[in-house]
Amino acid sequence: MANNTEGSKLWGGRFVGDTDPIMEKFNASITYDQRMWDADLRGSKAYVKALEKAKLVSAEEMEQILQGMDQISDEWSKGVFLIKPEDEDIHTANERRLKELIGAPAGKLHTGRSRNDQVVTDMRLWLRDAIAILTDNTLQLISTMVERAAIEIDVLFPGYTHMQRAQPIRWSHWILSYAVTLSRDVERLLELKKRANILPLGSGAIAGTPFDIDRELLQKELGFDGISLNSMDATGQRDFVGIKMAEDLMLYSTKEYSFVTLSDAYSTGSSLMPQKKNADSLELIRSKAGRVFGRCAGFIMTLKGLPSTYNKDLQEDKEAMFDCYDTVHAVLQVTTGVMSTLKINQSVMEAALSPDMLATDLAYYLVRKGVPFREAHGLSGKAVFTAECKNVSLNQLTEADLAAVSPLFGSDVSSVWDYRSSVEQYSAPGGTAKSSVTAQVEHLRNWLKTQSQ
Amino acid sequence: MANNTEGSKLWGGRFVGDTDPIMEKFNASITYDQRMWDADLRGSKAYVKALEKAKLVSAEEMEQILQGMDQISDEWSKGVFLIKPEDEDIHTANERRLKELIGAPAGKLHTGRSRNDQVVTDMRLWLRDAIAILTDNTLQLISTMVERAAIEIDVLFPGYTHMQRAQPIRWSHWILSYAVTLSRDVERLLELKKRANILPLGSGAIAGTPFDIDRELLQKELGFDGISLNSMDATGQRDFVGIKMAEDLMLYSTKEYSFVTLSDAYSTGSSLMPQKKNADSLELIRSKAGRVFGRCAGFIMTLKGLPSTYNKDLQEDKEAMFDCYDTVHAVLQVTTGVMSTLKINQSVMEAALSPDMLATDLAYYLVRKGVPFREAHGLSGKAVFTAECKNVSLNQLTEADLAAVSPLFGSDVSSVWDYRSSVEQYSAPGGTAKSSVTAQVEHLRNWLKTQSQ
Amino acid sequence: MANNTEGSKLWGGRFVGDTDPIMEKFNASITYDQRMWDADLRGSKAYVKALEKAKLVSAEEMEQILQGMDQISDEWSKGVFLIKPEDEDIHTANERRLKELIGAPAGKLHTGRSRNDQVVTDMRLWLRDAIAILTDNTLQLISTMVERAAIEIDVLFPGYTHMQRAQPIRWSHWILSYAVTLSRDVERLLELKKRANILPLGSGAIAGTPFDIDRELLQKELGFDGISLNSMDATGQRDFVGIKMAEDLMLYSTKEYSFVTLSDAYSTGSSLMPQKKNADSLELIRSKAGRVFGRCAGFIMTLKGLPSTYNKDLQEDKEAMFDCYDTVHAVLQVTTGVMSTLKINQSVMEAALSPDMLATDLAYYLVRKGVPFREAHGLSGKAVFTAECKNVSLNQLTEADLAAVSPLFGSDVSSVWDYRSSVEQYSAPGGTAKSSVTAQVEHLRNWLKTQSQ
Amino acid sequence: MANNTEGSKLWGGRFVGDTDPIMEKFNASITYDQRMWDADLRGSKAYVKALEKAKLVSAEEMEQILQGMDQISDEWSKGVFLIKPEDEDIHTANERRLKELIGAPAGKLHTGRSRNDQVVTDMRLWLRDAIAILTDNTLQLISTMVERAAIEIDVLFPGYTHMQRAQPIRWSHWILSYAVTLSRDVERLLELKKRANILPLGSGAIAGTPFDIDRELLQKELGFDGISLNSMDATGQRDFVGIKMAEDLMLYSTKEYSFVTLSDAYSTGSSLMPQKKNADSLELIRSKAGRVFGRCAGFIMTLKGLPSTYNKDLQEDKEAMFDCYDTVHAVLQVTTGVMSTLKINQSVMEAALSPDMLATDLAYYLVRKGVPFREAHGLSGKAVFTAECKNVSLNQLTEADLAAVSPLFGSDVSSVWDYRSSVEQYSAPGGTAKSSVTAQVEHLRNWLKTQSQ
Repeated sequence: MANNTEGSKLWGGRFVGDTDPIMEKFNASITYDQRMWDADLRGSKAYVKALEKAKLVSAEEMEQILQGMDQISDEWSKGVFLIKPEDEDIHTANERRLKELIGAPAGKLHTGRSRNDQVVTDMRLWLRDAIAILTDNTLQLISTMVERAAIEIDVLFPGYTHMQRAQPIRWSHWILSYAVTLSRDVERLLELKKRANILPLGSGAIAGTPFDIDRELLQKELGFDGISLNSMDATGQRDFVGIKMAEDLMLYSTKEYSFVTLSDAYSTGSSLMPQKKNADSLELIRSKAGRVFGRCAGFIMTLKGLPSTYNKDLQEDKEAMFDCYDTVHAVLQVTTGVMSTLKINQSVMEAALSPDMLATDLAYYLVRKGVPFREAHGLSGKAVFTAECKNVSLNQLTEADLAAVSPLFGSDVSSVWDYRSSVEQYSAPGGTAKSSVTAQVEHLRNWLKTQSQ
Repeated sequence: MANNTEGSKLWGGRFVGDTDPIMEKFNASITYDQRMWDADLRGSKAYVKALEKAKLVSAEEMEQILQGMDQISDEWSKGVFLIKPEDEDIHTANERRLKELIGAPAGKLHTGRSRNDQVVTDMRLWLRDAIAILTDNTLQLISTMVERAAIEIDVLFPGYTHMQRAQPIRWSHWILSYAVTLSRDVERLLELKKRANILPLGSGAIAGTPFDIDRELLQKELGFDGISLNSMDATGQRDFVGIKMAEDLMLYSTKEYSFVTLSDAYSTGSSLMPQKKNADSLELIRSKAGRVFGRCAGFIMTLKGLPSTYNKDLQEDKEAMFDCYDTVHAVLQVTTGVMSTLKINQSVMEAALSPDMLATDLAYYLVRKGVPFREAHGLSGKAVFTAECKNVSLNQLTEADLAAVSPLFGSDVSSVWDYRSSVEQYSAPGGTAKSSVTAQVEHLRNWLKTQSQ
Repeated sequence: MANNTEGSKLWGGRFVGDTDPIMEKFNASITYDQRMWDADLRGSKAYVKALEKAKLVSAEEMEQILQGMDQISDEWSKGVFLIKPEDEDIHTANERRLKELIGAPAGKLHTGRSRNDQVVTDMRLWLRDAIAILTDNTLQLISTMVERAAIEIDVLFPGYTHMQRAQPIRWSHWILSYAVTLSRDVERLLELKKRANILPLGSGAIAGTPFDIDRELLQKELGFDGISLNSMDATGQRDFVGIKMAEDLMLYSTKEYSFVTLSDAYSTGSSLMPQKKNADSLELIRSKAGRVFGRCAGFIMTLKGLPSTYNKDLQEDKEAMFDCYDTVHAVLQVTTGVMSTLKINQSVMEAALSPDMLATDLAYYLVRKGVPFREAHGLSGKAVFTAECKNVSLNQLTEADLAAVSPLFGSDVSSVWDYRSSVEQYSAPGGTAKSSVTAQVEHLRNWLKTQSQ
Repeated sequence: MANNTEGSKLWGGRFVGDTDPIMEKFNASITYDQRMWDADLRGSKAYVKALEKAKLVSAEEMEQILQGMDQISDEWSKGVFLIKPEDEDIHTANERRLKELIGAPAGKLHTGRSRNDQVVTDMRLWLRDAIAILTDNTLQLISTMVERAAIEIDVLFPGYTHMQRAQPIRWSHWILSYAVTLSRDVERLLELKKRANILPLGSGAIAGTPFDIDRELLQKELGFDGISLNSMDATGQRDFVGIKMAEDLMLYSTKEYSFVTLSDAYSTGSSLMPQKKNADSLELIRSKAGRVFGRCAGFIMTLKGLPSTYNKDLQEDKEAMFDCYDTVHAVLQVTTGVMSTLKINQSVMEAALSPDMLATDLAYYLVRKGVPFREAHGLSGKAVFTAECKNVSLNQLTEADLAAVSPLFGSDVSSVWDYRSSVEQYSAPGGTAKSSVTAQVEHLRNWLKTQSQ
């Protein structure tokens, strides 16, 4: 009934002792948050300096704590730090060890601090480093792509829309379209870093800190760009790099396309079919978009409906953050590997160009002779239809055939049937002409230089 | 350029050797799919019997393989199975070990089988067991709740809609509303099991098996309910148990409500504030809805846009499946623990009932005297307004006050102000009257009996 | 300050009158829930009969209400029902109109009922019909596919895994793999219907109904399969049909594959490129998976973190439900159209078969001569490698070439190089042999017959 | 069979005529993209100027087109533009009308342009305006909150973590924690605008434009910040404002909390229970997080697995974009309304403060006397336990009681039991002391001034 003694077993429940071992495991985060050991120690080392300045620890105690921290850091680096069963999370583990090493003064370290602001500080320190690494990975990938585009600038192949052959373009134009997308991802990473690099330490559990903790000192010690404005306001945001390039490359590596051949280092065989060479690396890259989306969607869902300030639900953030980082990190490296070892089959690519892809040029031929585009589009379509009826390709239509479509077609129409000239027309900024693609290469090379400064 | 030798390093790529170690790690699944070691061995043991029947292995070879399998099973059970660097997944690991143990005949085991149908068979065997465990967990939770509802049937408290106090209801009525939801989850689990328990083995990579493999024998050996109809058709579906009860209990355990007190086994303290007792268990349960949703959403996203048959992207399925299982498994157990040790504060619950919650009953009083409901609703609202103006509670209105609202109010209106009588009116099936709640308890007890048969 | 008069404008807020027009629009659902007018009237007609049985309306009042309802139904059918600004939702609109038509008795209709149980009843009635229509659509699509598979059973083409050519299979085998998937969707729709077809009416807002409302009468009148067990327990579940077939067909209709040609009725042109014929119908089908997922994910997110019983958040359910229904309804119809008018290019399909796809058969040739599969797989791989080195196709290797790989290769190896024989080997249930595919056709035809009963 | 005439009906398909009406409806976007009529006309007006400069239309033709455009603009503004059945989208509708108005020259407008770059230009123009409006809405909301915080700075109430009372804080501190969050949303909106405001016009379908179209002229005419670098690279990104404040306010408006009272303009009643006043506005705000998430998740899913360049799938973007804008727009306005009319109940809020919330201060009392925090935390916990055992509140412990816990407790401990002094301790930046909260108000007021410049 209502007043049963806590823990007694009236309704056949699973568990009734003092502690439920499943609950303990459910509650602990040490298995994954130990990854932030270094950020946790760095944060505490800065904090003890602020405590000393506020006269909450003596200079001597500060020294003891700093030396203890260094020793703990050493133990983690060497892989000899021993996690004990009662270490619920990385913060308690480090403090428990500190107490073992230096005794009483360790108990002063947490003065005026809460695990709520401590854990957010640790995460921001960790995230700042993680963003820097991902930015480097992305820049390296862009660089690989830009240099490849520079070298292979003379290769033409079909541009596709709706997965149907559309217009002849340069292979380098295709590569650079992704390099540009990735450069926007770098911008987003830097914006993210700017917002992440704000110091929350000194917010306590919720109300702030009642002691004379110098938050500017903490900011400077830990290299943050600013100080959080309101102690109740905590945040986490994530973004991710969409990788659609894999889809194109998978198509281009099928037997049907045969435009590119993946390096053996990025392919695998079949356990049943001896002839198979599968583009596993591209399939894995493609699959990771789902994984990262799921982690983000799951965490957004976890956030939904929470009241303000810290709730234990937020513990879900770390595994999601680590997994997103690891996944994107691996994807960027494998993609760089794929892009730098891929072999292209230039003759097959150029053989896939067909005269009907120049139907737009045929319309433009008429436009240049004064025909309004809508009408020219219709006349070119008529020419395509005539060729289909006669079962010849578009450039095999006779002068008479074309004259029947429009009297404006003259013998100079033959100039249209040249893929390289067609491509060279697109010289406006962003186009696929050699000059335009070269300009893109130069633009990105310069941008890369500014990034690495 | 186009014809560079594979693996050469023209564009500054990250890696150019024969194998990229990051790609190998990216590709391998042994770190998590080893969890299916038993399913993999059981599947192979059945398969070798079908091979023997098809005369593809001799009776003697079959015996050697079966004994080898038993030894491997023994090694896994004892935790002494040694994974080697070249063991890409659980299937190759087990077969590699078999070869070490029995030599040549091991090479015959994979005849007519592909990893494509092998892995799906393993997953279905594993999933079948997992579903059975989750079903048991859920039944145990329902049982805990039903028995608790039976014992505490006399406790009344406010029912809420829109988080505002609505009508007096029984505490047991609230408990049973979740027991009913959970019983539908059991139904879904059973439907899922029905669809999962179909044998795919014998589908090969895609075309089927060219040998005389007796799929009925395999089905019988492995305890499947049926055989897949089409070898190209492979599937995975997941579903999940939404746990909203935690939200209610979190509210009920706040200082402001104080309806229930969580057992210490499911609460934790604060590192800063000595007086805090947080309902961490409920917060963790609540957070897991996001986690499981994210895993499912992520895997649905991974599936999206894939062409048919096996693609390496599907490798994402296992980690998602394991994590969903582990999470739901833990959630069900902790919830059972919480529900069986929770203390309710009956006096606080009943004190939260207030006369304005009987405003609907006041309207019904008039309905019983012939007033159309819409009009009675308005008159009762008027009475509520009068009470607010006089700053008294609704049942403190004088007969004169009520007569001013409607002449139909007589002295018998006092009968309305009894929470217990109010609740007893709701005796139609599904209502909150004692008889109705008792009927729900009985219904669920009987249903539970049929489930455990 | 704290005691400012409600509605005054101390902080420069946007709005301070008695009603905020944006809030009113935010709150109203009539623009979309009017779609349930018929379900709402049917529910009310049944309810008034229960009221009459409970002596809460007289027989005469019941007749008036029923006749009024019929007239309103007539107005909706003819498109002349006039929605007024104060009609917040379909329930108030219908009741407001009833009052205009028959006066006072209209006020009695809502006795003992709440909008909470009324709206769920309406949705379940609507959903039941919607599920029936989608089930019919799906059955029609399956039927189209099965009959097409029966007629085109002799067409072979490459089966793909990892988007790479794997083994020769029948075109009908491919069609049927999706027919089988769709038949599971029919099963799910029926399970959904079973769970949806439960009567919630009589649950009131939360506590049940205090009157003698005969819920069995309501159930019978409205054709429900059962009565909800607990008045606090309300639910909504959705599921969806994944359509991956579009992805395959999009590939098969590219210039590079050229296996199928879409009917003009399902293709469109380009505003710029005269020669383009885009598979827009398939792209739209593919895009809808995201739309339906988003609607479901969004609604699951909306549900997350809600406490029990009715909260206004649930108003989001209807637009999501309607949009999912409309989308799936259109997708099923367009897919049926595409599948029944698609032209296949048999000669191109069969030309895409290449001898290396028989490498598995070459291994099986050796298996039949007693070589363990793992070894045979290696020898066949060696043959593939030899052919690649000599730059010939696998079936052009001489007897000497093969003998160098394994002395077991005899002159009878030529029998391997026949695609039709290869396919015929896969005659186990679910395989791609003619007999097996025919069995699948028969199985599905019979299943379709049982569904339409 | 394979060579059936297109459109014949061999397999019982739904439809076999020349055009499938469902497919037409499936394909058309005019019902929703007409909303971009103004952006479409503005884009075309700029484009015709570039055509004139490139000598592709004459000055006279340009004038005719510009005047025609102005007339069409006028028709849309007045609501008299007539959409015809063949108007597939807004682009064709406007061009069709132009042709009716000015004849032949209309056909020249589309020269060198594709719907692919036209639609992206339209969307970016529309989105730029939409972002500006949402930014204004958000700034207005922040301003409302800051001014409210300034006026109500003296109100104290409990700060919560884990939904349990934690420490006394200022009501204004709570308000400002959300104002700070919203200010980050403004930052994100501005970053988004920066990325959105790039001109894609001149990219054609994929290859660029072959004519001498002056893209700098287009950029200047349309007020874009830059020009897209690569014609194949097109993009769309969305972000959203999470609104968690609603969750807190919903709690605070329950009977159990009674901290705030919603204005009637933002509440609604119940159809059954006369006494109810539901916080519908907050529930609707809460529900919209799911809606917006679903739209974004759905569109991300639609994007997943697409190859590069335009695919018809992208048509899904517009409905999602419009719905997200409308939803966020309404949410921001209703939230501003709620926040400016909300009544707070200061006496209830302060009555909810209880001495146990000062347990942290009690520990700090000891810290100030030199006790290490970890030990002080334990001693304060012991005092809490003593109070619980004696069933008195923490501040009712006698000096003897406290001395038994620690001899360091003196008579000056009474100074701890003052909520206002407690709050004043938290004067470090971001804390809840009056000076700190005032500094936050000033900071945000200044920031608001810089935003509106």
